[in-house]
Amino acid sequence: MSDIADIVSREVPAINRYLESATETLNPMVQPVVRHVLLAGGKRLRPLLTILTARAMGYRGDDVYPLACSLEFLHSATLLHDDIVDGAKLRRGRESAHVRFGSTHTILAGDVLLALANRLVAEYDNPELTKLLSEALLQTATGEILEIAHLRDVDLPLSTYFSIITGKTAYLIQASCQCGAVLAGASPALIQAAADLGHHIGIAFQLVDDALDYTSPATVSGKPTGGDLKEGKVTLPLLLYLQGLPFEERRRLAEDFRQDQLSAEDIEYLRGNVVAGGHAERTREMAGEYLAKAQAALAKFPPSPEAELIGDVLAPMLARDK
Amino acid sequence: MSDIADIVSREVPAINRYLESATETLNPMVQPVVRHVLLAGGKRLRPLLTILTARAMGYRGDDVYPLACSLEFLHSATLLHDDIVDGAKLRRGRESAHVRFGSTHTILAGDVLLALANRLVAEYDNPELTKLLSEALLQTATGEILEIAHLRDVDLPLSTYFSIITGKTAYLIQASCQCGAVLAGASPALIQAAADLGHHIGIAFQLVDDALDYTSPATVSGKPTGGDLKEGKVTLPLLLYLQGLPFEERRRLAEDFRQDQLSAEDIEYLRGNVVAGGHAERTREMAGEYLAKAQAALAKFPPSPEAELIGDVLAPMLARDK
Repeated sequence: MSDIADIVSREVPAINRYLESATETLNPMVQPVVRHVLLAGGKRLRPLLTILTARAMGYRGDDVYPLACSLEFLHSATLLHDDIVDGAKLRRGRESAHVRFGSTHTILAGDVLLALANRLVAEYDNPELTKLLSEALLQTATGEILEIAHLRDVDLPLSTYFSIITGKTAYLIQASCQCGAVLAGASPALIQAAADLGHHIGIAFQLVDDALDYTSPATVSGKPTGGDLKEGKVTLPLLLYLQGLPFEERRRLAEDFRQDQLSAEDIEYLRGNVVAGGHAERTREMAGEYLAKAQAALAKFPPSPEAELIGDVLAPMLARDK
Repeated sequence: MSDIADIVSREVPAINRYLESATETLNPMVQPVVRHVLLAGGKRLRPLLTILTARAMGYRGDDVYPLACSLEFLHSATLLHDDIVDGAKLRRGRESAHVRFGSTHTILAGDVLLALANRLVAEYDNPELTKLLSEALLQTATGEILEIAHLRDVDLPLSTYFSIITGKTAYLIQASCQCGAVLAGASPALIQAAADLGHHIGIAFQLVDDALDYTSPATVSGKPTGGDLKEGKVTLPLLLYLQGLPFEERRRLAEDFRQDQLSAEDIEYLRGNVVAGGHAERTREMAGEYLAKAQAALAKFPPSPEAELIGDVLAPMLARDK
């Protein structure tokens, strides 16, 4: 564990310094919005994965930070837009950017960050990297659209649920790992291993998030407990719970949920039932299965301290409580 | 004129076919939003400039359409976001996308188009093109932000007004010309001439727009007459009018405008005064001066039928009534 602590304590401040210096190049009116979303204490998972993957594939250059941070900027841009789209009032326990700064500045600040991310990547003169970034934005926005199209859709097939979380979350994490491998000039097989690693981490990450939404008190997660239910988002814990209900009960609940007819008490009761039925826990177990797949992808990396570090990071990801 | 008609009648349908085929690759839920903004009858100025500039610089390849259309997609994405930002209800005489489809789908469709534009350009494996596109988005969003920061600011210096229109309009038109020259592998001097051409066309284009906002009836332009005044946008006709007012009258009007204290009748009266004072006409004259600068930049192009065509397009641009 001390190796992880070491690398996090070395790399995260370096990432944050780069994020800040790039933010300072932006129009002064955008900077407060950007700092609000960037500096609210994210885990920097995406840039860390880019850096560790590049290092694990033998890359020793100093110029990994702009690439790594471009993925964090892209992530931040999608957060800015998504909070407007979701009408979310809170982000990591603080008010969302659009609540603080208004939708206008927040939409435009998101666009500026998308442009900045693209520009940072363009500087590498490597079209593969540019394509990865464009594809990541396309997939992320498409995943969001799919999620919105299926709001309150309790008949959501599991395959569609996985398409949603692959798009809105996993693809960008996949691109983070893949970018590191491409920067390192890795072989196609290793680039694929990096992509698989990121994809499985991304799915696991979102599954844990979806479980936490049912179990974690707002004081820990910074988001309201049961927020997904309140917003009408149908995620795995609810889908698993509904699968186990008798037909008539399921039909009635489904109808009420679809019509947004549940009171705050109904929702809290439903949330309690989902948790009591073990469905949040089962969702976490499935996250564990995806982390095992991530480990299998990682096993294809050449042996290195950084590959070991990535492996060490996976278990705590599953155990996290926010 | 028949040469222009020829090329427009040949190239615009080809551009529209490519725009449609690229739109069909997008998620089905995004397509109606994209078609709404794309197919509302734009002039395709940006892709036409890319194609004509590339041809004028000797490029004979068939693969110019994705690049040309990436600039139209980028333009459409910024229109989608800007109409939300401006609260605009109309776009080219039809209801805006966010009014028809809601802000959520419109924000995300804009992000999808930004990603698509980047992906189309990434396929050229030419980092210069990618950088131009990123810079264009960055400048456009920054110009919008600057404009919003100066809403109702009647003390706006002319230099800031020109910074706003350079960012929000001219930079993307500049990039359209520059991309054509870069694709053609033109010399740095010719790439600069293309950039200058696009910059001056862009400024002229926005000046004509700002004049038309004061003079063109909604039935012709598809936008309400005096829309900028109603939205609190301070553009050149108003700035020129204010410069000519006696100090006390100017101070009073400025204060009322800043505080949004003008009634619909006051605004219509003000609009009439601006026009009667010749300030919309003077704005058009300034557009003519920028078109002369555009002609000077064009004169540096090697002689070609396409360069002549660009020249022929400039004069009607000034005379347009919508």
